[in-house]
Amino acid sequence: MGQSERQKMAVGEWYCCLDPELDGLRTLAREAVHEHNTMSPGQRGGIGPALSMLFADVAERVFIEAPFHCAYGMNISIGPRVYLNAGCTILDTAPVRIGEGCMLGPGVHIYCAEHHKDPAQRRRGLEIARPVEIGRDVWIGGGAIILGGVTIGDGAIVGAGAVVTKDVEAGTTVIGNPARALVAK
Amino acid sequence: MGQSERQKMAVGEWYCCLDPELDGLRTLAREAVHEHNTMSPGQRGGIGPALSMLFADVAERVFIEAPFHCAYGMNISIGPRVYLNAGCTILDTAPVRIGEGCMLGPGVHIYCAEHHKDPAQRRRGLEIARPVEIGRDVWIGGGAIILGGVTIGDGAIVGAGAVVTKDVEAGTTVIGNPARALVAK
Amino acid sequence: MGQSERQKMAVGEWYCCLDPELDGLRTLAREAVHEHNTMSPGQRGGIGPALSMLFADVAERVFIEAPFHCAYGMNISIGPRVYLNAGCTILDTAPVRIGEGCMLGPGVHIYCAEHHKDPAQRRRGLEIARPVEIGRDVWIGGGAIILGGVTIGDGAIVGAGAVVTKDVEAGTTVIGNPARALVAK
Repeated sequence: MGQSERQKMAVGEWYCCLDPELDGLRTLAREAVHEHNTMSPGQRGGIGPALSMLFADVAERVFIEAPFHCAYGMNISIGPRVYLNAGCTILDTAPVRIGEGCMLGPGVHIYCAEHHKDPAQRRRGLEIARPVEIGRDVWIGGGAIILGGVTIGDGAIVGAGAVVTKDVEAGTTVIGNPARALVAK
Repeated sequence: MGQSERQKMAVGEWYCCLDPELDGLRTLAREAVHEHNTMSPGQRGGIGPALSMLFADVAERVFIEAPFHCAYGMNISIGPRVYLNAGCTILDTAPVRIGEGCMLGPGVHIYCAEHHKDPAQRRRGLEIARPVEIGRDVWIGGGAIILGGVTIGDGAIVGAGAVVTKDVEAGTTVIGNPARALVAK
Repeated sequence: MGQSERQKMAVGEWYCCLDPELDGLRTLAREAVHEHNTMSPGQRGGIGPALSMLFADVAERVFIEAPFHCAYGMNISIGPRVYLNAGCTILDTAPVRIGEGCMLGPGVHIYCAEHHKDPAQRRRGLEIARPVEIGRDVWIGGGAIILGGVTIGDGAIVGAGAVVTKDVEAGTTVIGNPARALVAK
């Protein structure tokens, strides 16, 4: 018996996003996100029950401002004392790990999902998923975009509005579109 | 009898956005967008009644994630199997046509509206509107911005976070701010 | 007796954002923003009671589309006839003044808050706040980001998606990431 589309997604092979099982998982995520975003802030507290149950793993003292959006949620792992400001969006078709003490500014987007470059294959719903790994104490400036397959090292800084297409070394700062290491003046 | 501001907007001449008729149309759009964005995902389904009625034309199997925002809605035409991820925003002061099978990532913005470059004229509310035409099977990466007057050819790819100020040829890929064609390495 | 963290924030010194007084102020802002964003557009009108009461100063004929987000609100002063389109976000750890007649496109972000560049200090919650001053009749294109410490002169234009890291002179246009003055061709 062949692999399911969900299994192909999980092992990093091309899969069809139109698959009913994947569609069902996205429906669950959409409901959880809606609950998070419409709940009053006082009731929601730092993260709230909907996302806590949806995510793969959530440590202590995590704060996720509303609105938040994710594709599945089941692939998101968040370390202790992580803060996501308003409007963060994670397309977690592959594992997204955000390390202890990370701070994400408003509107930071993380995209594991990549459609096929051939329009004919894209039309059939073919996608591939690549994980994103963010180390400890990383500061990601507002409006930054992190693409699939990227690893960001401990203590790094991503400038506001940067588009990160390659790995970022620990302790370094990247800015721009596409993002490049900031050279000290 | 002279043209109304709405007529001037429709034919691509300078018009005053403070006009009461245009204000009324924006109010209708604001109510529809609010309904779309606060409705539970299960009730809303792929597009929901509010935007279906607001838009100029909506084909089959269209999916528009919440939140969505538009200025008028009445100038938006969406082809079959088009998918807009969360946070897309269309300032449709002129016609915006999105072709069959297009996929827009989260937070894609399309701006037909352009204010006057002279601050004194801007203060009087002078704007001009230029249409946006997106072909079939186009993939627009998350966070990309498409300016008024732009045509994007069939099967093209716009990179995440790109700011598209000029036409994009069919089958090509553009990235960056401002967006430029990606040269094969 | 030493200065409170709020006092240090107000005078532009390093302060700890984990402070309970600051946390309480952010909680108030979060409630006001939630009320603004969930209220029906007809009830809300141009700005609505929640943000009117939260902001330092709001002049006549201000319009703030939902959703809107801010960190404190108490540092925001908005002049007459200012328009903020949907999704604008202001991290107002320092004063943000938006002059008469300014127009902000959708998703414009203003960040006064800057975390410490040293990960060990960042972990302790150390931040510094720098004001943003926007003159009269400035047009800020959608998706633009304005960093702390920036002053934008009267009548200037900031291109869509620009990341503004330095002052912008009156009457000039800046574009790109990082933003640079547009040279006439």
